[in-house]
This record gives sequence, C-alpha cells and structure tokens, in this order.
Amino acid sequence: MSETIARLQNTLKIIDSSKLFQGTVIAVIVISALLIGAKTHDLPEPLVDFLGILDVTVTIFFAVEIVIRYLATERKSEFFKKGWNIFDTIIVIGSLIPDGGSGVLLARLLRVFRVLRLVSMVPELRMLINALIKAIPQMTYIALLMFVIFYIYAAIGSIIFHDINEFLWGDVSVALLTLFRVATFEDWTDVMYETMAVYPLSWIFYLTFIFLTAFIFLNMMVGTVLEVMSAEHELQRASSHGETAEGGEPASRAQVDALQEQLTHLQQLLEQQQNAKR
Amino acid sequence: MSETIARLQNTLKIIDSSKLFQGTVIAVIVISALLIGAKTHDLPEPLVDFLGILDVTVTIFFAVEIVIRYLATERKSEFFKKGWNIFDTIIVIGSLIPDGGSGVLLARLLRVFRVLRLVSMVPELRMLINALIKAIPQMTYIALLMFVIFYIYAAIGSIIFHDINEFLWGDVSVALLTLFRVATFEDWTDVMYETMAVYPLSWIFYLTFIFLTAFIFLNMMVGTVLEVMSAEHELQRASSHGETAEGGEPASRAQVDALQEQLTHLQQLLEQQQNAKR
Amino acid sequence: MSETIARLQNTLKIIDSSKLFQGTVIAVIVISALLIGAKTHDLPEPLVDFLGILDVTVTIFFAVEIVIRYLATERKSEFFKKGWNIFDTIIVIGSLIPDGGSGVLLARLLRVFRVLRLVSMVPELRMLINALIKAIPQMTYIALLMFVIFYIYAAIGSIIFHDINEFLWGDVSVALLTLFRVATFEDWTDVMYETMAVYPLSWIFYLTFIFLTAFIFLNMMVGTVLEVMSAEHELQRASSHGETAEGGEPASRAQVDALQEQLTHLQQLLEQQQNAKR
Amino acid sequence: MSETIARLQNTLKIIDSSKLFQGTVIAVIVISALLIGAKTHDLPEPLVDFLGILDVTVTIFFAVEIVIRYLATERKSEFFKKGWNIFDTIIVIGSLIPDGGSGVLLARLLRVFRVLRLVSMVPELRMLINALIKAIPQMTYIALLMFVIFYIYAAIGSIIFHDINEFLWGDVSVALLTLFRVATFEDWTDVMYETMAVYPLSWIFYLTFIFLTAFIFLNMMVGTVLEVMSAEHELQRASSHGETAEGGEPASRAQVDALQEQLTHLQQLLEQQQNAKR
Repeated sequence: MSETIARLQNTLKIIDSSKLFQGTVIAVIVISALLIGAKTHDLPEPLVDFLGILDVTVTIFFAVEIVIRYLATERKSEFFKKGWNIFDTIIVIGSLIPDGGSGVLLARLLRVFRVLRLVSMVPELRMLINALIKAIPQMTYIALLMFVIFYIYAAIGSIIFHDINEFLWGDVSVALLTLFRVATFEDWTDVMYETMAVYPLSWIFYLTFIFLTAFIFLNMMVGTVLEVMSAEHELQRASSHGETAEGGEPASRAQVDALQEQLTHLQQLLEQQQNAKR
Repeated sequence: MSETIARLQNTLKIIDSSKLFQGTVIAVIVISALLIGAKTHDLPEPLVDFLGILDVTVTIFFAVEIVIRYLATERKSEFFKKGWNIFDTIIVIGSLIPDGGSGVLLARLLRVFRVLRLVSMVPELRMLINALIKAIPQMTYIALLMFVIFYIYAAIGSIIFHDINEFLWGDVSVALLTLFRVATFEDWTDVMYETMAVYPLSWIFYLTFIFLTAFIFLNMMVGTVLEVMSAEHELQRASSHGETAEGGEPASRAQVDALQEQLTHLQQLLEQQQNAKR
Repeated sequence: MSETIARLQNTLKIIDSSKLFQGTVIAVIVISALLIGAKTHDLPEPLVDFLGILDVTVTIFFAVEIVIRYLATERKSEFFKKGWNIFDTIIVIGSLIPDGGSGVLLARLLRVFRVLRLVSMVPELRMLINALIKAIPQMTYIALLMFVIFYIYAAIGSIIFHDINEFLWGDVSVALLTLFRVATFEDWTDVMYETMAVYPLSWIFYLTFIFLTAFIFLNMMVGTVLEVMSAEHELQRASSHGETAEGGEPASRAQVDALQEQLTHLQQLLEQQQNAKR
Repeated sequence: MSETIARLQNTLKIIDSSKLFQGTVIAVIVISALLIGAKTHDLPEPLVDFLGILDVTVTIFFAVEIVIRYLATERKSEFFKKGWNIFDTIIVIGSLIPDGGSGVLLARLLRVFRVLRLVSMVPELRMLINALIKAIPQMTYIALLMFVIFYIYAAIGSIIFHDINEFLWGDVSVALLTLFRVATFEDWTDVMYETMAVYPLSWIFYLTFIFLTAFIFLNMMVGTVLEVMSAEHELQRASSHGETAEGGEPASRAQVDALQEQLTHLQQLLEQQQNAKR
C-alpha cells in the first residue's frame, strides 16, 4: 500500500512541476483577480450567480492545488520551512471563509489577497520581492531619523498652531498627518498661509521642514544606490581576488631584476672559464 | 531598357542619401508640424485655404519621398525588413486619407503622427528611441508588481469605500484611477479626508499605499541604474579579458621564484667546476 | 577620601557603559516623546496630573543621567570637547525650565527637543547625522546658485506683477515664497493664469524658472552621487596603490625578453665549451 | 609718457587682483541685491531718496570697476575673448540706463541682473555654471524628443478636446501649456475629469502621456548619470594606460615558462659536463 502512496506522490510531483499545471494556476489567479474586480461593478442577477459559482470553483481549485503541492513534497516538515509556502497556505486558508452572512465583508477582503499568489507563482516577481526585502534594513535607520524629525515638528506644530486649525494641528497624530501632507507638497501653501495669518514668521517652520526632509530623502536615495553598489564591488573584488590567488601574485620588477643580475654573474663565470682554456 | 532603370535607380539613391534631400525632408516635417498647430487656431478664410493647399503639397511630398526611398533600395524585400521603413510607410499611408467628409477628425489625427517622422529622420533621436526600447524589458516585471499592488488596493478600496464616494471608489476601474491620482499626490488628502470622516483609521490605507509605491519606485530607479551599469561593466570586462588573453596571464611571483632557485643551483655547479680546475 | 571618589567614579563608569543603563535612557526618551505627544491631546484632569508627575520624573532622570556621564569621564575638560555631549547638555538644561507661569509655551517647546536625544543615544543615528553633515559643504555653492536664481526671478516678479496680486508678488520676500511654491508645483498654474490674464506672455517667466531650477536640481543630485563615488574611488585607489607598492611594480614583458636573450647567449657559450672538449 | 601709463597699468593690475578689491566688489554686489529687494517694499520718502543715491553710487562703482579691469589687461583684444568679461560688461552697460522717465521699468529690470555678477566673481559659482553648460548638449536631443511627444499630444488634445474647454485646449499653444501642467501633476485630475465627462476613455490619453514623459525623464536622469560616469572612466583609463605604457606590458606566464625550459636545458648541459669530467 505504501507503494501506491509513493506512486501517487510521484504523479503529484510530476503534476506540480509541469508547465501546464503552473500555467493553469497562474490563469486561475488572473481569473480570480478579474472576478474580484467584476464583483465591485453593479451586475445583473444571473451574472452575479454565475460569478458566485466561479468564485467557489476558484476557491476549491486553490485548496486542491495547495494540498497537491503539500502531498508532492517528500518531507512534510520542510514544506512549512519555505516562506512562500506559508504565504500561499495562509492566503488559501483565509479565502476559505464562506462569502455570506455577517462576515461577508471580511470574506471578500481576504479573497482580494489571492492576487498576491501571482507573486509567489512567477519566479521573477518572487526574486523582485526578495530583493526589496533585502533593501529594508538599510532604510530602517533613515526611516527612524525621518520619524524623529516628523515627531518634533508635529509636537511643535500641535503646541503652537493648536488653536488656529484644530483639524490640522489638534494633536500630535493629526499634526503628523498634516506634515506628511506638507512633505508631499499637497496643498501645503494653504496650510502655511493659514498659520502665517496669525504667526507671520511661521513660513520658517514649513521651509526648514521641507528642506530637512528633502535633504535627508535625497541623501537616503544616494546612500542606497552607493550601498548596493559598494556591496556589488565587494563581491567583484572577492571573486577577482580568488582568481589571482589561484595563479599567485604577479611577479614584481625587482624580482626579475635580481634574476638578471644573477644571470649576468653566471655569464661572466662562463666567459672566464672559456678565456682560461684558451 | 533595364539599363535606363538602373541609371534611374542610381540617381534616386544619390538623391536619397544627399544631405540636401534629407534636410528638405526634415524641413517639410517641421512645416507639417507647424501646419497641424496652425490649424488648431481660429484663422481667417484665405489663410485656411492656403494651409489646405500646403497640407496637400506636404502629403504629396511625403508620398513621393517614400516612393523614392523604396525605388532607391536595390532588393525590394529588404526595404520592409527595417523597422523604421515600415514605421514611415504606415505614417505616410495613414496621412493619405483625404481631409474632408465624415472622416475629417480621423484624417486630422493621423496627420499629427507625421511629426513622429522627425524621430525616424534624425539619427540621434532614432538611437535614443532604440535605447529606450532596450530599457523596457527590465521594467516589465516591476510594472507587473506595481499593478498587483495597485489592483489589491483598488479592490479593497472599492469594497470598503464604495458607498462613501461612488465617483472615486465605485468599482475597481475607477478605484485604480483614484489610486493613480493618490500616487501622483494630486489632491490626495481630499480623497483621504473624505473616507476618514467615515472610517477614521483609513489613513493607514493611504499611507501604506504611498510608502509601498514610493519604496518600490525608488528601488526600481536604483535597480535600473545598477542593471545598466553592471551591463556596461560586463562589456568592459569582456573586452579587457580579450586583451589579456592575447598576451596570456601575467607571470606569477612563485614562477619567478622557481626560476631563481634553478639559477642559483646552476651558479653553484659552475663555481664548483671552476674550483675543481684550479 | 580621593580613593572613595575614584571608586565612585569607577562605579559610575560601569553604570554609564552598561547596556541596561543605555536601554533605560532610550526607554525614558521614548516615554518622554509619548508624554509630549499625549499632552497635545485633550485629556481628563487626573491623567494630566499623572503626566505632569511623569514629566518631572523624566526631567530629573535626564539631569541625573547627564551628571553621571559627566562624573564618569576622567578628564572633565574632555567631556565638553565631544559635540554630542554639548548637544545633550544643552537639551537637558533647556528642558529644566519649569513648565508653568508665563514661560509655559517655551518650556513645552524646549521639552520637545528631548526627542533628539534619541539621535545622540543610538550609534547608527549618530553616524547617519555625521554623514549628513559631511554632505553639507558640497551643497552650499549649489544652494547659493539656486538662491541667486530665486532672487533674480523674485525681484523681476515683484517689479512686474506687483499690482496683479500684492499677496503673492507684493515685495521680494513674498515673491521668494511664491516662487518656492511654484518650484514645488503647488497650485503654480493658479499663480500663472492670474498673471497671464494681464501679461499673456508671462508663462515664459514660469517655464524658464521651472526648467532652470529643475535642471540645476537634477545636476545637483547627479553631482552629489558622483562626488561621493569619486571620493570612494580615490580611497580604493590609494589603498590598492599601497598594496602594489609593497610588492613593487609588476615585471614587464621587455624585462623578461632581455632575460631570455641573456640565457640564449649563455646556452650558446656552454654548447661551444662542450663541442670544444669533444 | 608711455612709462607713466605702464606704471598706472601695473598699479591697476595690483588693485584688480587684490583680495580687498575683490571682497569689496562682492560686498557691493550684495548691497546692490539688497537695494533691489528693498525697493520692492513700500518705504518712507527719505529712505527712498537715500536708496536712490546708493543706487547711483553702486552703478558708478560697477562702471569704474569694469574700466579698471579693462585697463589692467595688457592686450585689450583679449579682454573681450573671455566670456565672463563680456557677461560683466553687458550687465554693467545695461544697468547704466537712468532709472527715470518712461524707461523706469526696463531700467529697474536691467539692474536686477547685477546680482548675476556674483556668479562671475565667485570662482566656485563660475565653475558650477561651466559644469552646467557642459551638461546641456547631452540633454538637447532628449529635450527634442520630449518636445515631439508634447507636440503630438498637444495637437491631438486640441483637436479632440477643443470644444470641451477652450481655455485649456483651445489651440496647440495652450494645449502644450496644459500638458506641461499635467506633467507636473498640478491639478491634472481636474483636467482629466472634465474631458472624461464627454469622452469616458480619455483617461488613456492622460495616463499614456504621464507614463511616456515619466519613463523618458527617468531614462534621461539615468542616462545623464551614466554618460558623465563613463566619461570619467574614460579619463581614468586613458591615464592608467599612460602609466603602464611607461613600464611596458606585464610579463606573461608563457614567457616565464619558456625561460624555465631554457634554464632546465642549460642545467642538463652543465651536469653532463661535470659528469664527463669525473
């Protein structure tokens, strides 16, 4: 009987790694995405019913697909060691919640994330995401510094401008949002002109804030480019070092000069011998 | 008689490759562009008539020019293998539709594209376009990733915010447009404040969206720069490898040390010989 | 008795450099930041009292901490030679002003800057700030050039557009602010359409201004990237030069050719000897 | 008498190149700039009179300074070969027009450009401008390509949207301005929503336009960075090639291997000799 299982597992593995199956999964993901989009439109009754049936089919398909993938892996414990497998399983389980009753909104929202499975299915997108995740640590401290600056300006803004416009500067939270708006240049002059009517010098507050954030942002960009580049250089250097290590360091001019001196001495010796014989 | 044709073809080739002819074509393209611009203004009757005649002349000129270019090529089949020739021919044929009757709008629109012939005439612009086309593949997957993110946010937005503002969040299509607007920072706070009135925490939706798109966009830029640069490096390496291959790998220090040892042994042999003789 | 002081100093040094103490300081800074934020909200009476007590505690904690740090340094004169120590001391002294009476606003504002102590406590942020400060000189002249351009446009704007909108173009100062707004693309077309109603050609003023500032800004960015990169290259070169200097210059082909000639000559000599003997 | 002139010229040269004189000129330029700014404010009568006298003084000072510089140059014909001298002379002559009568506006405007003399006086700014001018050619063709795209979209826009909003799409000129506004994301959705009310698919027009311009702009930036960088690399290569040319190409491994073979042969010969003797 264990042989039957082994044979079944082998068949599943072949199915799982076949181009056709992977193509089908991607197609179903795209259909699922279109389905989600279609449902946001106002549609006639029969079409809604049809889409409902299609939705159930897609949900079942995804559940079956993940089970096939799970059964196809030889060591079951390793299945959940791969991040993308966990990612897929959570999305599929999340979308199993029935689309009805009180949880209708949640069920619809969870189904949206099925589009993310496109990322885990297309290798190029998976690589992109991995590359993006690598870039996060080098941006964390810049983000912290940015937040400190935002927080200080938000605190000052909510203390000084509190009574001018409670909607924009009421407390530190809304002030943070207002400053983010200023940082994106979205109607920032309206915000400024309002406070300048009371405090004519408050343009200093906005201009220093814009210069600081723009300056740090610019340096962040430059820094990121350089950091990634120097990492690449390190890799190149390390590999080129390996190459020369194989052949050893190149011979130096001084070494060859020493050789030549020795040869000249040898020649003189031989010439003396020859002269002595004559 | 075939000699007459050969002579004619030769004459046409000389005309086609002459600086004067090419300059004339560029001049006519510019005139054609100005003509298109002039027609969008409200002009007095006689001028309109004059422009109409000029327009016909330009159309005929372009048709004649492409025929000359076609006849000047020796192997007719190769003429349509060059992308730019097909490009020119389509534009010229497109602008042959008479500017009158029911198709007046289409005829005018097709004539606009004659300006694009400037790109196919000026070699520097042609090179630029070729370079831009090369940059497309490396941006395709980033664009796909961006679209996935836009689509997920659009689906969520159209589900949650549907009843707040049907114009902005009515279905997934208009929600995509609204999110593109948010991504360009165009009055995005108006969109946010509206939904925050109902869902006070909806700022999370907008801020995560802005951070995600900005973060990916930044990495896309950095990535593009690095990809192009590493391609250049590869080229430089390949060429420099070719240079050293010609002369072989540089001599290593260990090799020269071995040489020196051998020489020292030789010297000792000679000195022994000399001593033996005395 | 001096021994008691020495022992105390040693204990303080251990406290100062312990992970626990540094973690506590960072925690207190975060609490202090939250406190500042909390105070901007409208809170019930008892909570305000509690926050007031907490605020006094934090203030005392910071004062004690800086005293510990001061006592822990062996040479007192060196304590104030470190920029970050002066920075910390000023912030702590500034926040000692009692939060009451007429100076309540100033006291609250000064307390905001305690958040900046996060920068002086976290080494990564301190490094970031040092890196940002290094980037300032290379941007100074670009900033000066930018200001000259802004000033010229502001002067021209305030001379020509003075009577159109006194709020935007009244004098050179408000004109500078208006131009900064135009440079951030914030409702710049409203400003332009207003002056175009009087001077139809005034779009030239805005477009040349936008092109000039964008062009210079773009070159500034490119320039900064390249300057930092060439500085890195210089460093790499200098270090790689040092490496080769150790081993000397690589042996040249001409040198080895000379060696070979000498050896051939030697061989001929020896062969002559051998032939002579036979 | 020619000796007196030579002595005078020498004195003028010493004055011209003295730090004090150059500092004075820069100070006068700054005063002149402040003067221009001050005049845009509403000032009391006596101050206006005082500023008028100051203005005349500055004008005379600049005229005298340029005469000194001219007399200080030995070969008069070379004075006008330097671009910056011509630049200075034009600005000074332009500001000599009396500030009164009908030409009051022109006189005031011409005086504004005196601030530009700061650029010609400070060497670092002069270098910056030279660097910026060098970057112009590599941007010309990109600018031309951009203009072609803008022109085509403007022509299409003014043909299709002409009747929707004559102010925005009336003719090709205002359409170009409208598209520039769209490219800066300034209230571009207002423009789009207006045309979408008539042509629901017109979002395609705006989105393709934004993507095209953004895509080309991004590539322009990347291209500029790379072009400047490859130019630097070329310089570095050329200089490093010069260095190795001095010492010749490095010795190859094959060469040293040939040497070793020759030596081994030599050794065998000597050993044969020694054996023969025994």
